[in-house]
Amino acid sequence: MVLLNTCLCVFSRCLKCWMLTPVLTSKGSHLLSNASAIPPRGDKRRVRQSANRALYEQLDLFRVLDSASIGHVAFNHDGWPQSIPTAIARIDDHLYLHGSRSSRLYQALASGERVCVSVCMVDALIKARSAFHCSMNYRSAVIYGCAESVENADKEALLDRFTEHLIPGTSDDYRAPLAKELKATELVRLPLTDFAVKIRTGDPIDDDEDLELPYWAGIIPMITTAGIPIASGNLPDTVKPSESLLAALQAMSS
Amino acid sequence: MVLLNTCLCVFSRCLKCWMLTPVLTSKGSHLLSNASAIPPRGDKRRVRQSANRALYEQLDLFRVLDSASIGHVAFNHDGWPQSIPTAIARIDDHLYLHGSRSSRLYQALASGERVCVSVCMVDALIKARSAFHCSMNYRSAVIYGCAESVENADKEALLDRFTEHLIPGTSDDYRAPLAKELKATELVRLPLTDFAVKIRTGDPIDDDEDLELPYWAGIIPMITTAGIPIASGNLPDTVKPSESLLAALQAMSS
Repeated sequence: MVLLNTCLCVFSRCLKCWMLTPVLTSKGSHLLSNASAIPPRGDKRRVRQSANRALYEQLDLFRVLDSASIGHVAFNHDGWPQSIPTAIARIDDHLYLHGSRSSRLYQALASGERVCVSVCMVDALIKARSAFHCSMNYRSAVIYGCAESVENADKEALLDRFTEHLIPGTSDDYRAPLAKELKATELVRLPLTDFAVKIRTGDPIDDDEDLELPYWAGIIPMITTAGIPIASGNLPDTVKPSESLLAALQAMSS
Repeated sequence: MVLLNTCLCVFSRCLKCWMLTPVLTSKGSHLLSNASAIPPRGDKRRVRQSANRALYEQLDLFRVLDSASIGHVAFNHDGWPQSIPTAIARIDDHLYLHGSRSSRLYQALASGERVCVSVCMVDALIKARSAFHCSMNYRSAVIYGCAESVENADKEALLDRFTEHLIPGTSDDYRAPLAKELKATELVRLPLTDFAVKIRTGDPIDDDEDLELPYWAGIIPMITTAGIPIASGNLPDTVKPSESLLAALQAMSS
């Protein structure tokens, strides 16, 4: 067994197919392509559990992040680890986060402390013949780094792209930002260089001796869609959602 | 301004309605009931940003956790904060997590290290007239504590409840666990005593001077549903999903 440092564990009772599978597994249907070099033993990025589901290519990371709106940021404060959910956006080769300058999270980020950001999206529940082999299909990533504050001429444009990532189809649908708003907003970014991606797809992996048991096994898709927009209570009846917003919501849900 | 230690930041550019609102706000429509005592200044649980959205009652925490399947666990390892997504289940007054004994995460949990677990579910995107006031409706929680390993006569029953939380309606739909499976599974639990909950609901909160601008503002619901179960490729045609599973999936999606 190869001992690795990072684990991305999701609903992970099963040693056989979730935990200790070697990098090359006989369960080929669940092996994802991974042309990049696996981080060396001892590297914090190296996935230890279900290592056959680990990916280390930046393109794989981008694909996961481009579907994500929330990241959980871990940092240390007063002797306690903290994990704080916050909105995220991948722009080019950085992960951007923004918030109030006064918050502990953004003070930690802007000061360049070591942080770790994780994202996880559940695509399906995996029902096996044994509870032990139940699982989830998911796309997840863990990113390590030290953030830097963004205070340059690009800040306003980057904040626009941030908002467009979270509420697509709305880039021309706001009043201009005020100087005091830009000043109050801490925008930070993490380089997307130090990370691990882990993805599970496909069927349950039951023990061979369980295959004839009379228990249903399969995939239960979990689907997130955008519902019909609900106008704010103080919106005049004459103002409707833009075509670009409606088109973007349609695309998000298809 | 009251200085608090914990922030749960989600899409949080807006100082006015997201960041620095006092505990009692004039925006009463967004003030949630919170009869419990607010943690004292300096307490790590005390929510600092948008404090009017903070809740400290265990019942509020239970409601959030009972809808959650994934928690992000922060802990320290080799000088780096870690944030690892993993499946969770609230059972009675503890948060349970399980995984391989060999994983770094479960070694940290079982050894009683300080950890922090966060959960976040996005219920809606909040489109305002200004990008600054855009937001999300969400339910989130941050839990602090030191976990303990569960190795007693209840372990098997607790694991059953864990699985039932994640794939409801399946409690009678598995073969019995094997002794080696139980032995290989680390089951840990955190007491649900040291936490903060933060919930946003309702409309965007635009600046009064923006209300007549011709930009749409409102709520875009984000809805997660369970899709039609897909049988495993190796499942005999005669084995169908149980009625209790189908009923539970229906209930999850309604």
